[in-house]
Amino acid sequence: MSRKGKVYIIGAGPGDPGLMTLKGAKCLQEAEVVIYDHLISPELLDMARRDARLIYAGKEGGRHTLSQAEINQRLLEEAGSGRVVARLKGGDPFVFGRGGEEAEELARAGIPFEVVPGVTSAISVPAYAGIPLTHRRFTASVAFVTGHEDPLKEQSEIDWKSLAGMGTLVFLMGVRNLPQIAASLVARGKKPDTPAAMIRWGTTVDQETLTGTLADIAERAEAAGFKPPAILVVGGVVGLRKDLNWFETQP
Amino acid sequence: MSRKGKVYIIGAGPGDPGLMTLKGAKCLQEAEVVIYDHLISPELLDMARRDARLIYAGKEGGRHTLSQAEINQRLLEEAGSGRVVARLKGGDPFVFGRGGEEAEELARAGIPFEVVPGVTSAISVPAYAGIPLTHRRFTASVAFVTGHEDPLKEQSEIDWKSLAGMGTLVFLMGVRNLPQIAASLVARGKKPDTPAAMIRWGTTVDQETLTGTLADIAERAEAAGFKPPAILVVGGVVGLRKDLNWFETQP
Repeated sequence: MSRKGKVYIIGAGPGDPGLMTLKGAKCLQEAEVVIYDHLISPELLDMARRDARLIYAGKEGGRHTLSQAEINQRLLEEAGSGRVVARLKGGDPFVFGRGGEEAEELARAGIPFEVVPGVTSAISVPAYAGIPLTHRRFTASVAFVTGHEDPLKEQSEIDWKSLAGMGTLVFLMGVRNLPQIAASLVARGKKPDTPAAMIRWGTTVDQETLTGTLADIAERAEAAGFKPPAILVVGGVVGLRKDLNWFETQP
Repeated sequence: MSRKGKVYIIGAGPGDPGLMTLKGAKCLQEAEVVIYDHLISPELLDMARRDARLIYAGKEGGRHTLSQAEINQRLLEEAGSGRVVARLKGGDPFVFGRGGEEAEELARAGIPFEVVPGVTSAISVPAYAGIPLTHRRFTASVAFVTGHEDPLKEQSEIDWKSLAGMGTLVFLMGVRNLPQIAASLVARGKKPDTPAAMIRWGTTVDQETLTGTLADIAERAEAAGFKPPAILVVGGVVGLRKDLNWFETQP
């Protein structure tokens, strides 16, 4: 217990292992213990030291292998015992990744930590679908929203009226609530013909994109059997995809 | 002219060269020509091939070394002559980076391009100041806004009323308009005591952070002589910094 451990809270990026950062890769290679989430690519885990202990903490479809309390506990135990821990999270750890909560636990326990930001799926997945989130012809603002709210909350934390006034919207993890999301935005004033895209397995070889409008995207996704993990992009910038779709057209 | 060139539109991250992606570094090392923006760190440029031609396209305080039209022209010329070009942009190229416009030009000219998303300053700079943009106790939404609008626009593209309803707000490049931004948000219903932070030279050794509230942040920034490049974060999550300020407290 004499040696002081440490936790690197690392954003692993959206899926394409090449979108890991140089610093993230370095910290991963230093780690004695790697605690990783669902959807972290095997290529990234292969970068860890051969003698590192890998612990899967993923959640899938709402079911957790480890609860958040258990993950926090493991972080405290491993680092508290003097080990260097890499906490690998998809995308960026501080955007809907609960990295803030994990950092709070570590701070409370006096365990040193560093945050290694990652390439967020909210930006990079649309980019791989040929959709720039901002563009001077279309919008000066973009909003990210979680597609599933904390069920413990008594009322919706999401101000739909305000959301409907933003130029570009990105909903993460929104597949299951897609019909309600689209209907809520239209009810609050977004035009039904606003372009919308669903992107599945973004930045990986399995990437699939479905486009439509707020009026029909839910129906189209249903018809196509579009399943998680997917994100939803809403706004005029979606129309740029017809010219900028560089990734899905690669040989 | 027989060989076909190519352009990699690369997000170089927020400043810390470790936040470059693995893929970005690889593309940079492949490039024969590097066209780079203001604030790209010298450590990143050193990763380029020794024989690569480096072209500075930066803008500083609104003054461009090359105009956007000239940058587009250079991209077309270099790649059109069969060269591999790395177009290095700060942060992420598709978030207020005009990467979408450059991609459109390339698409129009039939020149192959790839987008290499980067770690956006909008997320990583707050992270290095100990501020997670989302947190279940505070907010389920975050919005990014450019602090300076296209002056060619006749009316404000920014819907301030909607912005004021978003949980966390990040203004990029907003130092000069700080008093107007804070006043507009309060006028549209954001509470004057909403926590706010300005972060300067984020993720670099020169990082400085100033905290306050919407009511006094402009005055504090003025008093401290806070200059660009800086971003503004507004929202309850700013309060987490007092526990999570990991970077500025490093030895």
